[in-house]
Amino acid sequence: MRATTIHAPGDIRLSDVADPTIDLPTDAIVRVVAACICGSDLWPYRGENDIDPGSTIGHECIGVIEEVGADVRAFRPGDFVIVPFDHCDNTCVHCVNGAQSGCVNLGFTLSGQAEYARVTQADGTLVSTGGVPDSALMPSLLALSDVMATGWHAAVAAGVTPGSTAVVVGDGAVGLCGVLAAQTMGAQQVIALSRHAPRQAVATAFGATHIVAERGDEATERIMELTGGVGADAVLECVGTAQSITTAFDAVRPGATVGFVGVPHGVELPVRRMFRNNVGLAGGMAPVRKYLPELLDLVTSGAITPGLVFDQSLPLDDVAEGYRRMDQREAIKVLIEP
Amino acid sequence: MRATTIHAPGDIRLSDVADPTIDLPTDAIVRVVAACICGSDLWPYRGENDIDPGSTIGHECIGVIEEVGADVRAFRPGDFVIVPFDHCDNTCVHCVNGAQSGCVNLGFTLSGQAEYARVTQADGTLVSTGGVPDSALMPSLLALSDVMATGWHAAVAAGVTPGSTAVVVGDGAVGLCGVLAAQTMGAQQVIALSRHAPRQAVATAFGATHIVAERGDEATERIMELTGGVGADAVLECVGTAQSITTAFDAVRPGATVGFVGVPHGVELPVRRMFRNNVGLAGGMAPVRKYLPELLDLVTSGAITPGLVFDQSLPLDDVAEGYRRMDQREAIKVLIEP
Repeated sequence: MRATTIHAPGDIRLSDVADPTIDLPTDAIVRVVAACICGSDLWPYRGENDIDPGSTIGHECIGVIEEVGADVRAFRPGDFVIVPFDHCDNTCVHCVNGAQSGCVNLGFTLSGQAEYARVTQADGTLVSTGGVPDSALMPSLLALSDVMATGWHAAVAAGVTPGSTAVVVGDGAVGLCGVLAAQTMGAQQVIALSRHAPRQAVATAFGATHIVAERGDEATERIMELTGGVGADAVLECVGTAQSITTAFDAVRPGATVGFVGVPHGVELPVRRMFRNNVGLAGGMAPVRKYLPELLDLVTSGAITPGLVFDQSLPLDDVAEGYRRMDQREAIKVLIEP
Repeated sequence: MRATTIHAPGDIRLSDVADPTIDLPTDAIVRVVAACICGSDLWPYRGENDIDPGSTIGHECIGVIEEVGADVRAFRPGDFVIVPFDHCDNTCVHCVNGAQSGCVNLGFTLSGQAEYARVTQADGTLVSTGGVPDSALMPSLLALSDVMATGWHAAVAAGVTPGSTAVVVGDGAVGLCGVLAAQTMGAQQVIALSRHAPRQAVATAFGATHIVAERGDEATERIMELTGGVGADAVLECVGTAQSITTAFDAVRPGATVGFVGVPHGVELPVRRMFRNNVGLAGGMAPVRKYLPELLDLVTSGAITPGLVFDQSLPLDDVAEGYRRMDQREAIKVLIEP
């Protein structure tokens, strides 16, 4: 099949690789209908993560089941499904505890930006859309495979409640989805940190009540002004760098929580400051499957349109160009059509 | 008045110092009826914290109001009160948010191990016992000024719920109170880490269902055995050292929270591990005033007897001996009577 592969920093190719196969009776193969590039795909692209040269890349997709293993009961070929990037059996003790991203049978989509993807623990992992969705819904459904569920997880971890004040650090697609999550959960004030006009526009469309274009200490000052000197009731940290973590802890009020979903790179947590201010930290890799039923309802009812994070679409043949545009911040998030 | 002073590591004295005075109209002076030595007093005693030579020390006490400032409305001389170690107005936005230890008018008891103590923001800080308590209740009421409220905060921060599994790291008086808190909140399994028989006995009296005497990796193995390989639903970290924090993160299940109340010393948080396992950290200095009404009810109704943490009593004259015994772990916690 045709699949996206990475060979070195900056070196993304479309390659012919072996089709994925049913390796375990709990596996399924999905024909990818829509895929996309994740901010976390840019870590290896930028040389920040190790690369296994020639390996496939991409973990966000939706599509149609092509084949199922002998033990798969809930799905059959032809079903249209959302594929959480993190696969889980949804029955182990961690899954039952709502920590599906810690499943004892955890797996990942490894060839999302390709024609086919193997899904492990298919019965636990997949969620059916109940038929082929309207094409207008496709981007929003695709967003549920990772980015929207991750923004949602940030808001859950940060403890957003109706009437609260939320600050979202990061104007990547995850941060924008965090804005949408906080707004959907009833936050009265949603302050988005962004200095890029196209991203500010999406943040506003997603319900941001205030945009802070400043950075560092000036951003903190502005947030303190907007929150009456108190700080935010909930902060969503959607980047994962030392600078963004610092901004998050600067923005949060005593007794509140920073919800973090950006994979931390070079971060040292301010433990004494956390202690002094009773500020908690929670989050991590999103348990996508946990949130999917609720998020699917919100998308199909039209309550949320997370697909607005996709400002560009490219055919699979041009996937390398998609990486280039996201790396250069010429695109917020690129949808890929095999 | 006679007051405990610290002059250098290991150098605790009983000194004659000036009586505390009403400096602000919101102050009150409390005649100390019972006081005690805190595990955190041992940090400067052991030379781990800076010392201002000759300064008074001690922040846990109960007593009778001697004098109030002109703006104090809720209390009058003669009232018997519990004195939270952290003073707060209980009306500012942080207090209203339940983060009284982040009060904009935060203050501290500075001469608790003495004849008199000044209490700032008296109307917000103090809680009356409604008359002179029975002498048998005194130790448990004294425990509410810090140690029991701090153990309670660990359990709240860790998210202990009815039926859950809780691990308590640390068998100091705070850890033991954490056991009592977890048991009172309905944890089904309360695993106390302790290898000292007298502390094990108190932990068991407080409702520990299991005692783990091992340390390090062996402690983790034992906890995993006891929790069916899952890890605990809630971990109370009641020490504050690098080793105790590591043990706490080793013991917690994916998706759960470590509640920490031991002032961190030399601690580096495992941020990537927290992210990978979706393990949160919450806690800090206890908002004592927040919990006092509930804890006072529990003590006066006989539901909890946190005063069992005091295994020794000494007159104020012998306070230096009390420090020595706690430092040498010859006593769990020493009650001081002026």
